[in-house]
Amino acid sequence: MARVKPQTLSGFMELLPEKQVVFDLMSARIRSSFELYGFTPLDTPIIESSEVLLAKAGGETEKQIYRFAKGEHDLALRFDLTVPLAKYVAANYGRLQFPFRRYQIGKVYRGERAQRGRFREFYQCDIDIIGDGELGIMNEAEIPSVIYSTFKSLGLEGFVIRLNNRKVLNGLFAILGVSDDSAEVMRTIDKLDKIGRDETRRLLGELSIGNNAEKLLDILAAEAPVEALEAFSGQNETFDKGLEELKAVTAHLAAFGVPETHYAVDLTIARGLDYYTGTVYETLVTAHPEIGSVCSGGRYDNLAEYYTDKKLPGVGISIGLTRLFFVLDDVGLLNAEVQSAPCDVLIIPMTGDFSPAVALATAMREAGLRTQLYTEDKKFKAKMSYADRLGVPFVALLGEDEIAAGKITVKNMKTGEQTTAKAGMLTEGIRERIAAARDTKPIREI
Amino acid sequence: MARVKPQTLSGFMELLPEKQVVFDLMSARIRSSFELYGFTPLDTPIIESSEVLLAKAGGETEKQIYRFAKGEHDLALRFDLTVPLAKYVAANYGRLQFPFRRYQIGKVYRGERAQRGRFREFYQCDIDIIGDGELGIMNEAEIPSVIYSTFKSLGLEGFVIRLNNRKVLNGLFAILGVSDDSAEVMRTIDKLDKIGRDETRRLLGELSIGNNAEKLLDILAAEAPVEALEAFSGQNETFDKGLEELKAVTAHLAAFGVPETHYAVDLTIARGLDYYTGTVYETLVTAHPEIGSVCSGGRYDNLAEYYTDKKLPGVGISIGLTRLFFVLDDVGLLNAEVQSAPCDVLIIPMTGDFSPAVALATAMREAGLRTQLYTEDKKFKAKMSYADRLGVPFVALLGEDEIAAGKITVKNMKTGEQTTAKAGMLTEGIRERIAAARDTKPIREI
Repeated sequence: MARVKPQTLSGFMELLPEKQVVFDLMSARIRSSFELYGFTPLDTPIIESSEVLLAKAGGETEKQIYRFAKGEHDLALRFDLTVPLAKYVAANYGRLQFPFRRYQIGKVYRGERAQRGRFREFYQCDIDIIGDGELGIMNEAEIPSVIYSTFKSLGLEGFVIRLNNRKVLNGLFAILGVSDDSAEVMRTIDKLDKIGRDETRRLLGELSIGNNAEKLLDILAAEAPVEALEAFSGQNETFDKGLEELKAVTAHLAAFGVPETHYAVDLTIARGLDYYTGTVYETLVTAHPEIGSVCSGGRYDNLAEYYTDKKLPGVGISIGLTRLFFVLDDVGLLNAEVQSAPCDVLIIPMTGDFSPAVALATAMREAGLRTQLYTEDKKFKAKMSYADRLGVPFVALLGEDEIAAGKITVKNMKTGEQTTAKAGMLTEGIRERIAAARDTKPIREI
Repeated sequence: MARVKPQTLSGFMELLPEKQVVFDLMSARIRSSFELYGFTPLDTPIIESSEVLLAKAGGETEKQIYRFAKGEHDLALRFDLTVPLAKYVAANYGRLQFPFRRYQIGKVYRGERAQRGRFREFYQCDIDIIGDGELGIMNEAEIPSVIYSTFKSLGLEGFVIRLNNRKVLNGLFAILGVSDDSAEVMRTIDKLDKIGRDETRRLLGELSIGNNAEKLLDILAAEAPVEALEAFSGQNETFDKGLEELKAVTAHLAAFGVPETHYAVDLTIARGLDYYTGTVYETLVTAHPEIGSVCSGGRYDNLAEYYTDKKLPGVGISIGLTRLFFVLDDVGLLNAEVQSAPCDVLIIPMTGDFSPAVALATAMREAGLRTQLYTEDKKFKAKMSYADRLGVPFVALLGEDEIAAGKITVKNMKTGEQTTAKAGMLTEGIRERIAAARDTKPIREI
């Protein structure tokens, strides 16, 4: 028979079982953390009509999108979870309660140029809070708390949430005489870290900000940015509103459980998209700033203007889980202690009649243990080696002697310790050890 | 601004939040049940190269598949989870341990003609056990146990797993003189329930089985099919092997925890595909046989022959979750008692300063309660109505008096009962009630 090479497309993540377990653990913890904050799950289709998906998009999006015809339909694969959310909220407006808080963890598609660490299919984990007409500033203050709890629950300790406010930035630009090249000014200060202060000043000098470049750089470099901003109060309405918002957000972070070590106001953050109108967020891994932001987002004023005349302001963030997993693996931050075996106990019957082993498996499953029964016709050594290679923590042996005595023998595969006792007693012991192992976090800093 | 109508494509399920919660609960319970049996999770790409995906397919599959070009690539969306599994096992053969037991819950795509209850994007929940070269019969005996536990964990009580064995059927056909029209004979007896015995006998009379039609119909109608089959032992090797397998499978079902009320050998079941070579399974909802099988599968001898010369026999089943959810909803079997609110507690601050409410929210989240803080500028009545419409079980009120006394007031939204006490005490009470509610099963028979 002519055979096809069993290949997975480049840019598509496909994991071996032991890695998949860690990936799923990350996904589950992100989900639980989002749920703890009262977000409701949503699952929208991966395929939408191109008209809906591209109502707003242009440029890069159009180029990267997977778009195709099926019958008379012009279809496309979603490239983010925000556009489907906008469609969903517009379509179901009358049936939702606002503020509408939803999370979605799902795959999105972008036909980017293939390169290491870039994925064409990847998971996004999004939360958004959508208001009907208006949405209070406390929602923007709560977002860093979600980010903080989420990454802590993954096991990450060293990270910083950077905050800024687009109104502050736009107001400041107006005060300092920036005219219609504000996007260019923004791009320039965004490079500050890389190119240094002198080069930044030179580049800014060529823009409309001109002589005020030094003043701007002073504010950006301020140890206490909020205090530095105070000096500009009362000159521009947008600026004043933005500063008030920034203060409201930072004022509540302690009560929201975010320690000072884990956030910083950073006036150089803008988040490219024009879309954002208030607080913006980025999250950096302290030991690996080269990774870039692992969780970003912000406040926007109009989620669904392409679909409805309702004004739907919101605030949201997104974690690019596939890329995050890839880079964490790459820099060695995935926790090797995560229990990756598909079962807690592997039962190896030592008799010809499998019935007692089957009954034991049923009892262990009823007790909540993930149990596999090994009944293949192999040598004992091969069976133990199977358990070993899968990383199974416990092997239960059931021979004539055990069956006669109403007992089982359990081997702890880590310690090598072997115990023979009544099944119920051993099951209880295994349960306790397994429950402890299940608290293992997917990330571990060394 | 010209607006696009926010439409979801027909044949694509998109649920309102309260239904999505029930769907997710079903999915989570299926996942847990699969894990209890020692299956490892897998997540393969939704897009594969057409060459890989269509290595075997033909006919209907080719017509229904979503296939498109992107750059120079000929791509397609997976139409099931079995072909990607075959590719995966062939590609990773040397890195997997056999028997390889995996589950996958994921979306698949078929561009079927749109009609009510038919979906073009739908979830499949699959388990498969793959052997390297060979795979023992006990794996086939275990599958009904997984089906049983899974549907029980969903809350379904009235269902029957129907079992058959393809070798028995093929052997029996050979004994009764069926020649190369065995597929036609099969299709005819498959209609027995609908068209009745007389019409079936007439149709069979026109086929190669001819005068033996009556004999076949007697076996199919036998009260004790296994005993009826015994009479044909020793005449055909395939038949004898099949009967031995069928007896081995049924012999262990009691030890596997499957009661006699929940399974039946049914010789009319063939599962269309040629693919199956041993035990085959179907699952019917007792009160709604019109739904058809809600979980089917069987034993096959060669999973990945289009990709590798390794012989990889296996056994697997699949639940079409999207359709199952749709029909359960349709016949009124979804449990209205499932807690669909996005949070366990909604905190309503009654003071201008939100800090104490924020701190309370943080404490409640740390205690594991899904907590939402309501800080929008609305009338009290609107806030309570928001909680009510979301079905939030508890509302926590925090006014000047409470703050001064170091207490909170909690209203049980179901009973209307209102209690003022220390936060810690109330939190504990809420936790207990919520934990009980979380055990609610997604299906409830009336």
